[in-house]
Amino acid sequence: MIDMASDFSKYGLVIGRFQPLHLGHMDVIRKCAEESEHLTIGIGSAQYSHTVENPFTAGERYLMIEETLKAEGITNYSIVPVEDLNRYSVWVSHVVSMCPPFTNVYSNNPFTRRLFMEAGFQVKESPLYNRSIYSGTEVRRRMVSGEDWHSLVPASVATVIDKIDGVGRLKSFIGKDAEL
Amino acid sequence: MIDMASDFSKYGLVIGRFQPLHLGHMDVIRKCAEESEHLTIGIGSAQYSHTVENPFTAGERYLMIEETLKAEGITNYSIVPVEDLNRYSVWVSHVVSMCPPFTNVYSNNPFTRRLFMEAGFQVKESPLYNRSIYSGTEVRRRMVSGEDWHSLVPASVATVIDKIDGVGRLKSFIGKDAEL
Amino acid sequence: MIDMASDFSKYGLVIGRFQPLHLGHMDVIRKCAEESEHLTIGIGSAQYSHTVENPFTAGERYLMIEETLKAEGITNYSIVPVEDLNRYSVWVSHVVSMCPPFTNVYSNNPFTRRLFMEAGFQVKESPLYNRSIYSGTEVRRRMVSGEDWHSLVPASVATVIDKIDGVGRLKSFIGKDAEL
Amino acid sequence: MIDMASDFSKYGLVIGRFQPLHLGHMDVIRKCAEESEHLTIGIGSAQYSHTVENPFTAGERYLMIEETLKAEGITNYSIVPVEDLNRYSVWVSHVVSMCPPFTNVYSNNPFTRRLFMEAGFQVKESPLYNRSIYSGTEVRRRMVSGEDWHSLVPASVATVIDKIDGVGRLKSFIGKDAEL
Amino acid sequence: MIDMASDFSKYGLVIGRFQPLHLGHMDVIRKCAEESEHLTIGIGSAQYSHTVENPFTAGERYLMIEETLKAEGITNYSIVPVEDLNRYSVWVSHVVSMCPPFTNVYSNNPFTRRLFMEAGFQVKESPLYNRSIYSGTEVRRRMVSGEDWHSLVPASVATVIDKIDGVGRLKSFIGKDAEL
Amino acid sequence: MIDMASDFSKYGLVIGRFQPLHLGHMDVIRKCAEESEHLTIGIGSAQYSHTVENPFTAGERYLMIEETLKAEGITNYSIVPVEDLNRYSVWVSHVVSMCPPFTNVYSNNPFTRRLFMEAGFQVKESPLYNRSIYSGTEVRRRMVSGEDWHSLVPASVATVIDKIDGVGRLKSFIGKDAEL
Repeated sequence: MIDMASDFSKYGLVIGRFQPLHLGHMDVIRKCAEESEHLTIGIGSAQYSHTVENPFTAGERYLMIEETLKAEGITNYSIVPVEDLNRYSVWVSHVVSMCPPFTNVYSNNPFTRRLFMEAGFQVKESPLYNRSIYSGTEVRRRMVSGEDWHSLVPASVATVIDKIDGVGRLKSFIGKDAEL
Repeated sequence: MIDMASDFSKYGLVIGRFQPLHLGHMDVIRKCAEESEHLTIGIGSAQYSHTVENPFTAGERYLMIEETLKAEGITNYSIVPVEDLNRYSVWVSHVVSMCPPFTNVYSNNPFTRRLFMEAGFQVKESPLYNRSIYSGTEVRRRMVSGEDWHSLVPASVATVIDKIDGVGRLKSFIGKDAEL
Repeated sequence: MIDMASDFSKYGLVIGRFQPLHLGHMDVIRKCAEESEHLTIGIGSAQYSHTVENPFTAGERYLMIEETLKAEGITNYSIVPVEDLNRYSVWVSHVVSMCPPFTNVYSNNPFTRRLFMEAGFQVKESPLYNRSIYSGTEVRRRMVSGEDWHSLVPASVATVIDKIDGVGRLKSFIGKDAEL
Repeated sequence: MIDMASDFSKYGLVIGRFQPLHLGHMDVIRKCAEESEHLTIGIGSAQYSHTVENPFTAGERYLMIEETLKAEGITNYSIVPVEDLNRYSVWVSHVVSMCPPFTNVYSNNPFTRRLFMEAGFQVKESPLYNRSIYSGTEVRRRMVSGEDWHSLVPASVATVIDKIDGVGRLKSFIGKDAEL
Repeated sequence: MIDMASDFSKYGLVIGRFQPLHLGHMDVIRKCAEESEHLTIGIGSAQYSHTVENPFTAGERYLMIEETLKAEGITNYSIVPVEDLNRYSVWVSHVVSMCPPFTNVYSNNPFTRRLFMEAGFQVKESPLYNRSIYSGTEVRRRMVSGEDWHSLVPASVATVIDKIDGVGRLKSFIGKDAEL
Repeated sequence: MIDMASDFSKYGLVIGRFQPLHLGHMDVIRKCAEESEHLTIGIGSAQYSHTVENPFTAGERYLMIEETLKAEGITNYSIVPVEDLNRYSVWVSHVVSMCPPFTNVYSNNPFTRRLFMEAGFQVKESPLYNRSIYSGTEVRRRMVSGEDWHSLVPASVATVIDKIDGVGRLKSFIGKDAEL
């Protein structure tokens, strides 16, 4: 509950597409939730789904994140789907308007860092993880090729993906541009 | 945590603009959270702010709701800002794509009820409350006229509104259409 | 079939929202179809539905028009839903891009006439009809108030509206802006 | 004319970009029109034109299809341009709102099939044709390179394309991204 | 020319719809141009035209402003049409991205003042003028009613409006919502 | 000042993205400004920034152009940022609505030429320049690679880019698509 004297100096934000949430993401989220009073997890590109780059809807990604945090006992978070406006010049203002307040932005992505720094935010580094294994691109590649992808994601995420036949959906994108 | 055998038959949705969240809303949310395994609270018209009808940003409304639920000890919820697409023919599909799954929709608004029923959802009635006193329109009116509005909203909401000078913002809308 | 030597000098356009198609509209369409080699019937505000002003989807309006023309034995037409871009400066270019070719525009509406004339089209007057009785506004009013509206529309339109419970839908708009 | 007792169980939909309509498309349309009481032909990506992938406007494509069906004596159809919303999560709802009713969707494209199946539609296979010869991509390639493309399309389509100097337009896209 | 040592502390912005530019506006622009090193004149609602509230296109308004400033010998300005995004939460960022740099914002409109102040800009008052006579609303009213409007606007503006038959256009909006 | 008897037969338009304005562009602008009574310089893709293809905002590009023209003593111009609508069928109408009037369009780009010619404009050739050296793509490439780019652009442009740390911004795009 807000104490009127409090400020949001230890409120943080981490934002990504989470297609899907994987163990590398969880390293970051876990650490940032620990050192923040409150962490907002923004789901970017929220309106896109059913593509190779963005197979899952914002709602499906919301569920994956929520179930995983519940399983880990993390509670000091907010999850916010954020649609792309495709105008980077207003992107930071847009994220700010969609999310509860935050002061610190956690990101290693130089582009995200720059946009927030140009807008006056405090940008911190997020924990490094092995990006060649733990990446949404790799998880999706394995899902299509039939390799083991379960070991790259939290158990709750695997459960959700299996429940919605995420593999079947990804496979249906092959030939997406064929006619009729 | 999702048990693969579970279904979402007791997952509910309540959706409104919450400009701002008031005690009438809380009657509904409290009751629906009780009878649902999980309740999604959708914040509609999420991209609008700084108008007489929609003074607060989605992020500000998110904070109001979250702080209030925390104070009440309610935990089985998700909050999801949902932008208006201004196309009612796809509105239900849009809400579904933005939110974690839900089966039951709680609403007394005949229009919202109809849209969800036309799309095949189970629509339940939400608890009635005194809409002439407890309404966003009345809260906003009192904020502008200088009458008591604090007694219409949860304490946490009053705290947030005072913190962001919500009254000052509403008052600045008078003369919004004046030139230069 | 296009004879390469033909031109489109007797191809016409009539465009309206048709919420719903009524007997006044049919006077116009019948006459314009007679004097044109081919008549395009544009359904404007195509993306809007489920509002007091625009209760029916473009698809529902398309069906109403098509069934009525079939019943009347009119065959030299195209029906084209045209979304509003809400930019009048490009509206004519937009209509042109969505529709098969046309040279003559039939309209008595001074605004529509002006936009097409400013863009260099030949604008003709459409037959006059009694606009106080035959208007979409009057049909919708009677549908809500329970008065006779069937006599204002072609039989096929009444059939479609009854089939989709159009009256029920219009009535659900009362209280559309109520909360939750 | 709609018989109130009828249903739309034999109403079908086939949807594609038709850039341009070619003989492979016509195999599909002809067959689906035969086995359907009524066939809606949706023109997707309706707002795009003047690009390598989408050279023709919706109106030009509408004309090509209409002239070809007239030449073949097929009459039980509706043609509907459908704009892309670039949100696949609402695409099916959007197509439904734009088109007269349909129950069966004809497509071999796994992606289109999946979207409609996820939304509860009956999806049927469309006739196969030789996609390496008969494809929009191949027709457009030949138009630019000066090879024979007339033999890949119905005569009416060739007539329309020649009339609007479609070849000249496609050729003007070379160097589209050059400056000034 | 920018001297690398210079800053933009005396660069100003004034933004309005200018439908049309009138003598009250010119009082403001003249004064602000005098006390600024450089003044950006933003034309808001740039994409709207051909309505009662916004009859003139951005290009027509640009011409009116430019011709008037030339006649007055004012040269230290930039004119920038700015489209409405209909999202006030990102409006200031949007204006900043469209315009050359500015530090001081001149406005008496409490809403505009508040948006810029919330975003950290220096907001100054613009000169007061008699808003009951000099207002776009009054100029447009007189244009429609046939009263004298020329005396409310600079000569160059009257010239442009007469050239484009602005009066005829405004009059065509009466009956804009009539059918067909 | 407009002389009511004047027409706009010697009013020209040149439109490009100017990412950034370089010496090749200036050859064109200088020549067109000489042979025109008035030249409008349209800045296309105005809403895009912070990408590899479009690194600078419309406002930053506006400043670059304005400072350069001032340094060269060219005064008979208007600068107009024009947002992309991503609909080429209405692009010319859109440009016309955003800009002061023009009759002649200067372009060597076959696509731009065709769109304007299809819309009835007079299209003239713009002076040729060495496009392998003088191109936005080459300037941006050198900025990222650390090679000399200053010699490809007017001094004022270099000044603006250095002032806004344009090189740093371009470099931050490497790794833009990395996660978190």
